[in-house]
Amino acid sequence: MVEKVNLLEKFATIQEFFSQRLIGEVNNTQIKIAKLKGEFVWHSHEQEDELFFVVKGKLLIKLRDKDILLEEGEMVVIPKGVEHLPIAEEEVYLMLVEPNTTVNTGNVENEFTKRNIEKI
Amino acid sequence: MVEKVNLLEKFATIQEFFSQRLIGEVNNTQIKIAKLKGEFVWHSHEQEDELFFVVKGKLLIKLRDKDILLEEGEMVVIPKGVEHLPIAEEEVYLMLVEPNTTVNTGNVENEFTKRNIEKI
Repeated sequence: MVEKVNLLEKFATIQEFFSQRLIGEVNNTQIKIAKLKGEFVWHSHEQEDELFFVVKGKLLIKLRDKDILLEEGEMVVIPKGVEHLPIAEEEVYLMLVEPNTTVNTGNVENEFTKRNIEKI
Repeated sequence: MVEKVNLLEKFATIQEFFSQRLIGEVNNTQIKIAKLKGEFVWHSHEQEDELFFVVKGKLLIKLRDKDILLEEGEMVVIPKGVEHLPIAEEEVYLMLVEPNTTVNTGNVENEFTKRNIEKI
């Protein structure tokens, strides 16, 4: 079935922060959303580029050599191998585009790590 | 260089309708934008799923068995092989996510067909 997805309706179903949900797949690429609040963890992805698109709020993405502040309607692609630390001072609605092999904490294993992403 | 992209700033650089621009790449997947107004052409993509995300306006996507009306903040994935016809009664700002092998008119070759997408 081909069905449309309303982003805000999908965000409304999420209660926890830093808990991704799968909302679509394009060949081997996944479209995910998450609500963020607080500081995530420094990590990188060995094989996967990762796109962050801010739907609501402001997301600071720290790199080792600079900071990137994403506002609503802004996105950035973090290339494979580049260490990054997402920080949401206030609540952020985030959409991610990345290969289906991507683990959220990349090369780091901690309490944020989730391998099974629920489809909503 | 890792640089953020502001969607509306990128749309502001586009003058023509149905002329895609590349704004990002995630492994073998491309993120493109286009302004649409009018009726495109019935087509399908043999190998590629195609994600349509409406940033501004309303986009009607006709399938052979139903119509899907996408409003701002809504998206749909058209699976490979599924014929579709995008129609923008008024101007639409569209973001696309699809494999880098995707040709805009899929299995059809006509005046809309473009193989070289400019990166902006």
